[in-house]
Amino acid sequence: MDYRAHFMVDPAKRPDLSGIDPDFHDAPSDRAAGEALAATNLDRIAAAQTRLFAEGGRAVLICLQGMDASGKDGVVTSIMHRVNPMGCAVQSFKTPTEREKAHDFLWRIHAAAPAKGRIGIFNRSHYEAVLIEKVHKLASPDVIGQRYRQIAEFERLLGETGTTVIKFFLHISVQEQLSRFKDRLDDPLKRWKISEADYAERRHWDEYMRAYEDALANCSTAEAPWYVIPSNHKWFRDLAISQITAATLDDMKIPVAEPGLDLALIRRKYHEAAEQ
Amino acid sequence: MDYRAHFMVDPAKRPDLSGIDPDFHDAPSDRAAGEALAATNLDRIAAAQTRLFAEGGRAVLICLQGMDASGKDGVVTSIMHRVNPMGCAVQSFKTPTEREKAHDFLWRIHAAAPAKGRIGIFNRSHYEAVLIEKVHKLASPDVIGQRYRQIAEFERLLGETGTTVIKFFLHISVQEQLSRFKDRLDDPLKRWKISEADYAERRHWDEYMRAYEDALANCSTAEAPWYVIPSNHKWFRDLAISQITAATLDDMKIPVAEPGLDLALIRRKYHEAAEQ
Repeated sequence: MDYRAHFMVDPAKRPDLSGIDPDFHDAPSDRAAGEALAATNLDRIAAAQTRLFAEGGRAVLICLQGMDASGKDGVVTSIMHRVNPMGCAVQSFKTPTEREKAHDFLWRIHAAAPAKGRIGIFNRSHYEAVLIEKVHKLASPDVIGQRYRQIAEFERLLGETGTTVIKFFLHISVQEQLSRFKDRLDDPLKRWKISEADYAERRHWDEYMRAYEDALANCSTAEAPWYVIPSNHKWFRDLAISQITAATLDDMKIPVAEPGLDLALIRRKYHEAAEQ
Repeated sequence: MDYRAHFMVDPAKRPDLSGIDPDFHDAPSDRAAGEALAATNLDRIAAAQTRLFAEGGRAVLICLQGMDASGKDGVVTSIMHRVNPMGCAVQSFKTPTEREKAHDFLWRIHAAAPAKGRIGIFNRSHYEAVLIEKVHKLASPDVIGQRYRQIAEFERLLGETGTTVIKFFLHISVQEQLSRFKDRLDDPLKRWKISEADYAERRHWDEYMRAYEDALANCSTAEAPWYVIPSNHKWFRDLAISQITAATLDDMKIPVAEPGLDLALIRRKYHEAAEQ
């Protein structure tokens, strides 16, 4: 299945998250086969990233959003365990600091945008604030509409200046979240991930889904698409994201870079050194 | 073999790099067994890093230095492919920018120091400048002596405020460097790594070794030790570094953190949510 075509949010249409099954997976229907396929996608990503780094002219930004325990950290880990860490930077966005709050909401995001040659991964992103504002009615509908426009224009700037943006919404069910919360309670090594806010925010589940639908509808473009990834099965989530990312990198047609050096001269230098 | 004891630079004694064999490796004598052992060390590092992150009170800084092609990137990759990338930040230091040059040499280094809970890896470090100054006589012996003191005091500050510092010098032979340069010439995918400066700097090999001996002699302390790692064999280099890092983390005795939360309350919240 072409996951890009299947999971991309149509820029012309508001998505209906209740109509997308978080449990979905297709063949390969078992976890081991899925993981093997994801590994080959990750190898393609790693190879493309080396060429991207060597080329040094363009960048890629992967944004991860989802409810608590939807697997954002897991996606970061699966990618970073395969690619060259020097060419790939992860940025996690928490509650803004006082210094960050003294600036507009895109200030810290822009500062963290990937440099040329790099793949950047945002673990939460510039979408987090507007989602919370919408659910908790912290901003007027006018301001929220403005935010979507500002975000879309910001992503357009990135695209026009050489950064390919891909955005993944990790779609889990409310039951799956609860079962992952239980794992955190039961496993002393995972307990530090528990937050007081977890159970409070989940009461607003449906409102969050509406807020995501709004954000996805307003900010999915052909140049910076949103994908809704069924994420109840971790292996399928990683498979779909790795395939979409690999295909996006393929489309960038990143050549094997020749360094801006006189290779004949370097060869001569090598032979001189070898003869000493 | 206890690589920590064996490869640590004695704070009381100037090391003699010509007396340390870059080809050295001990049992396990073959690559596959060495890699398997390194993998278990990396698992120990990954587990300790999760506890470090959860504890959120201390940090670790790993500094990598060595001649071109000595394997700094390789070490970064071997660690980062195993640990949680959200708890581990890599910083590569290149030629300082104009903005960085407007500050003292430790300014950009301090800014990049790992936050609490994190492992930071410096790919080149605050030692690079003083090595170049020494070899190319860009600073007087007085200034260079001052630098060593400033570096030692800076590392002491880090240590006293909760950051454990470990420093690895990747020791390769001049022949091994040339053979790695050849790989870069022969492999189109590695060619971008070639720099004009490579062959120029190698002419100063012996002076660099003296400069390293100076730096190691002046800045190896019990709290922030230097290790000289025989690095002609990549697998042995990774094995030694992983073992030393794992042992250093063990010594920090990082407990499994209990979150500062009322777990009984969280359990009640879980059951309420499960019953809905």
